[in-house]
Amino acid sequence: MAVTRRVKLIVEYDGTNYAGWQRQINAMSVQQKLEEAISKLTKTNVTVTGSSRTDAGVHAMGQTVHFDTASGIPDEKFSYALNTMLPVDIRVRRSMPAEADFHARFQAKGKIYRYLIHNTPHASAIWRNHRAHVMYELDVEKMNREVQAMTGTHDFAPFAASGSIVKDTVRTIYDARVVRRGDMVMLLVHGNGFLYNMVRILAGTLISVGTGKLEEGAIARALASLSRLDLGVTAPAHGLTLMRVFYAYDEHEAGEYFEKLIRDGE
Amino acid sequence: MAVTRRVKLIVEYDGTNYAGWQRQINAMSVQQKLEEAISKLTKTNVTVTGSSRTDAGVHAMGQTVHFDTASGIPDEKFSYALNTMLPVDIRVRRSMPAEADFHARFQAKGKIYRYLIHNTPHASAIWRNHRAHVMYELDVEKMNREVQAMTGTHDFAPFAASGSIVKDTVRTIYDARVVRRGDMVMLLVHGNGFLYNMVRILAGTLISVGTGKLEEGAIARALASLSRLDLGVTAPAHGLTLMRVFYAYDEHEAGEYFEKLIRDGE
Repeated sequence: MAVTRRVKLIVEYDGTNYAGWQRQINAMSVQQKLEEAISKLTKTNVTVTGSSRTDAGVHAMGQTVHFDTASGIPDEKFSYALNTMLPVDIRVRRSMPAEADFHARFQAKGKIYRYLIHNTPHASAIWRNHRAHVMYELDVEKMNREVQAMTGTHDFAPFAASGSIVKDTVRTIYDARVVRRGDMVMLLVHGNGFLYNMVRILAGTLISVGTGKLEEGAIARALASLSRLDLGVTAPAHGLTLMRVFYAYDEHEAGEYFEKLIRDGE
Repeated sequence: MAVTRRVKLIVEYDGTNYAGWQRQINAMSVQQKLEEAISKLTKTNVTVTGSSRTDAGVHAMGQTVHFDTASGIPDEKFSYALNTMLPVDIRVRRSMPAEADFHARFQAKGKIYRYLIHNTPHASAIWRNHRAHVMYELDVEKMNREVQAMTGTHDFAPFAASGSIVKDTVRTIYDARVVRRGDMVMLLVHGNGFLYNMVRILAGTLISVGTGKLEEGAIARALASLSRLDLGVTAPAHGLTLMRVFYAYDEHEAGEYFEKLIRDGE
């Protein structure tokens, strides 16, 4: 009998047409599509584990996934085989061998999220599913000053969606920046972990600071008061993309990738 | 009775779900959606004229349109009113008064087109409708050298799709460039006019030169031989976007916009 081994995938998806990453009843998830494709390919029932349970409408360039298989397909070939079976809005960017104890979710040591805003008087036709629309001109320098309060180790409880049941709300943010390129405003955040809705609440807060609706210093005030009320509303899901998940940490590599994102946007 | 006047619109659309700009039987066009919205809004049957008859799948950030109306709606308010009625993949970016003899198509003095390529081993989920996928690594410097042969005034007959009935195939290209940003390769072309499929044939030729399938100098050879056979295949429609149409020509403004596109991509 073939020996079971663990395989790791880097998955890109357009979250527009899915109810999110996680499998659920009565709605199509990215996880289900992936499990169906792998199960069909390997002719066994396969369950996959993803690093992040992204919400409905949220995208991923680098969702990291593991699964176990005894299939004869070489690890590196899974990407090619799966891409012939998956819908066009889900692509496996890379497949590779993983250690037997590798865990896509519990071993994640860092993540980079990107939030995109389209800053024009009228909403965009082309970017309607990939950027949140803000019609008032954003002061990006102000937003970038504001977001610096995120860096470091803090209790991010005010950034957790109400109803969240997580106990430990302390996280470390390594880098956070807001830049403009033409009509697009991009927020990038790199941290060791994120609470549920944390990046979207951050984006909503920065938008409010950028339009002047909320006074500068809101993040520092919230981190002191621990009150959700000091922050802005949760920004829409479709502006958010999970860019990369880090396991064995290489700070230099992570920093270089962050700078590449600032430069290239993706 | 109200006096009829001419109104100009700058229209953005995602061409994915349309059979192109031009109205046709048995298929939905951008023109039809726009005419339906304006007719409903002004309670009269309105016909619109666009600067370019973009193909199925081709996008626009700056399609320019004119129509006549006796409506009491102020010219600048049409954008807001129409955007409440149009589907989300068509947006009016601006509306403004036009001279009585302004003609969106016949008075166009220049256009800028953008062609985007996603250059990765696997196709992209997120960019599937907005960038052509090329799996072999593109030599962008080589492509940029090659495209320089386009600039100037030439008989571009070899760049016209077969079956094209246009007589005068002489056009002037002011600027053409290929740049890379991460996985994205961008072609920008600015000229006084374009033959049917010209940018897509150019993109296909540059892709072939960039992968080494076609020898450098293909464009110069084709412009000398006037043979379509010296060029590459027609690249897919969905990589193409009509960025801007110029009327009263301001070379400085056009040049600045071109540089902005090189820098920002949009």
